[in-house]
Amino acid sequence: MISIFSGCRIKSGMTGLGLFTTASHLEKSPVSSDYPRNGHLEGFLVVSRTKFEGIFSLNMESELEMRRIKGLLIDLDGVLVKGKAMKPFPDAADFVALLRDEHIPFRIVTNNSTKTPEGIVRRLQENGIPILSQEIVSPLSICPQVLQERGVETLFVMGSDGLKEYLAANGFLVKTEATVDAVLVAQDRTLSFQETKIAITAIKSHGAALFAMNDNRVILDDDGMVFPGAGAICRMLIYAADYEGHYVHFGKMGERYNQTVFEEFHQDKATLAIISDDLYTDITGFQEEGLMGIFITSGKYGVDDISTGMKPDAIFDSLSEVAVFLINR
Amino acid sequence: MISIFSGCRIKSGMTGLGLFTTASHLEKSPVSSDYPRNGHLEGFLVVSRTKFEGIFSLNMESELEMRRIKGLLIDLDGVLVKGKAMKPFPDAADFVALLRDEHIPFRIVTNNSTKTPEGIVRRLQENGIPILSQEIVSPLSICPQVLQERGVETLFVMGSDGLKEYLAANGFLVKTEATVDAVLVAQDRTLSFQETKIAITAIKSHGAALFAMNDNRVILDDDGMVFPGAGAICRMLIYAADYEGHYVHFGKMGERYNQTVFEEFHQDKATLAIISDDLYTDITGFQEEGLMGIFITSGKYGVDDISTGMKPDAIFDSLSEVAVFLINR
Repeated sequence: MISIFSGCRIKSGMTGLGLFTTASHLEKSPVSSDYPRNGHLEGFLVVSRTKFEGIFSLNMESELEMRRIKGLLIDLDGVLVKGKAMKPFPDAADFVALLRDEHIPFRIVTNNSTKTPEGIVRRLQENGIPILSQEIVSPLSICPQVLQERGVETLFVMGSDGLKEYLAANGFLVKTEATVDAVLVAQDRTLSFQETKIAITAIKSHGAALFAMNDNRVILDDDGMVFPGAGAICRMLIYAADYEGHYVHFGKMGERYNQTVFEEFHQDKATLAIISDDLYTDITGFQEEGLMGIFITSGKYGVDDISTGMKPDAIFDSLSEVAVFLINR
Repeated sequence: MISIFSGCRIKSGMTGLGLFTTASHLEKSPVSSDYPRNGHLEGFLVVSRTKFEGIFSLNMESELEMRRIKGLLIDLDGVLVKGKAMKPFPDAADFVALLRDEHIPFRIVTNNSTKTPEGIVRRLQENGIPILSQEIVSPLSICPQVLQERGVETLFVMGSDGLKEYLAANGFLVKTEATVDAVLVAQDRTLSFQETKIAITAIKSHGAALFAMNDNRVILDDDGMVFPGAGAICRMLIYAADYEGHYVHFGKMGERYNQTVFEEFHQDKATLAIISDDLYTDITGFQEEGLMGIFITSGKYGVDDISTGMKPDAIFDSLSEVAVFLINR
């Protein structure tokens, strides 16, 4: 069975047309030389190594780049799982199994600031995705040491109760008033007038330093609406308090976070790719670090959100499509 | 009676020492030539024309500049009145009376985004300060026309019920959901997770334009703490939604607001001064427009908040001190 397939797009947002085949009778046999070329498009017949099948299109330049992939950074929310309940996407477990089968090293790189790595692992395992906690790089694993190094003892936290308990367990005094060494901003569904008031007063009147768990713009809520990420909340606090200090965050693109991630791979950054639904920090950010950027549209952003200056190396609508690409390189 | 007086400071935050005298036997007789000079400081004996007495110190440069004052822009909150209840400072009524006696033209320039000019007048009159509504320039008097010119019909408003009613009365459909032409941010004591979520979704997903009643950093609350001004809330929304449109506000330093203010005076801007507790928009902002900036410490900022690059022409702790200066030029 052969049919037109248009779910996969190439650099600059162009829609790539290609062939889709169940192809159960074929065995990993690229037929690019037989397939009519259309400008920058190039087609591949694709055969499932595990449960994946389909076809993708990439321009030649991207294809050559993407063939180099020797390791993957995989975003968690919007890629492997969805929403507050961390419900896995249907192809997430198979995708992880494929990576293990193919010996493609990977790390789950999350900006999640509400759960410990162990908590994330538990939730993933309950949902049929076997991940080890050392395969996760999370702001919570970065945060305590950096705060200690900077002499922070008391904190006002805009974040979840879970985070507050974690910080208390790590020796910090979490206060509910403005007389603190530092304000720490995390994902915060309880964002309130009173909270912002304490935070700004702490920074402006008590000289508190400002830290954030990540630099996120938005979080996609279960109802399809978006709410402000820690980065957005920090922009409010910085302008309000005219904060002139160095704003430090523990998430992706943060100095310590990236250092930790890249120590995990003993490979040239140019052979690594990030798979993410976040066009800003993840795709553009890691591309600036030298990685390839695979944008996946299953999360908070769509192709329409690709603005000037953003150039994902590839765009896929699901992990199945990424899998198809990987096993047919 | 002569005593040391140190409540008045000069440019660059230096504390000026001078003489304070009840001086009921003197009549507006500057004695600067008799008074020992101390670096840039120069003293004046001061006699009350109405109820004001005291002495101030200014450096020579500021003194010469300040002698030129032919009209005043006067901030409302933190200068004439204090807090949510708009309680007047004890010397506010006398100060306004002095300006009328001395024929010094003035306008109350406020960024208040919760009350109509008529509402402000009513509150001031109840508190013994007779001001006419045409003596007030307010974002609410600017807002409806600009929104109409830009084709806005439906609005999501982050602001007071009073503002929402005012907008509805001016022909706008005020909605509580994200499908709107524009998001309008005002001073908002009800700032909530749900509100920010609707606002960001409106801008990001429905292409709503962003407007603000003013560009304030913080508002001083009655308990001495500060909460985010409309400008600060907008910084959060802009970063969250990656808003690339032109951000328009109706407050001080906004194009239309300033135009309205300066049309009120038929004088060279260099002969006007702003009296304000706001170091940023008011003092620094109007100085950049060519006015003199008189910083008053009775509001949300103190001398310690004067950061690099800020240079108020004079610093006073109360309107009485400003009055003493004005009548002894």
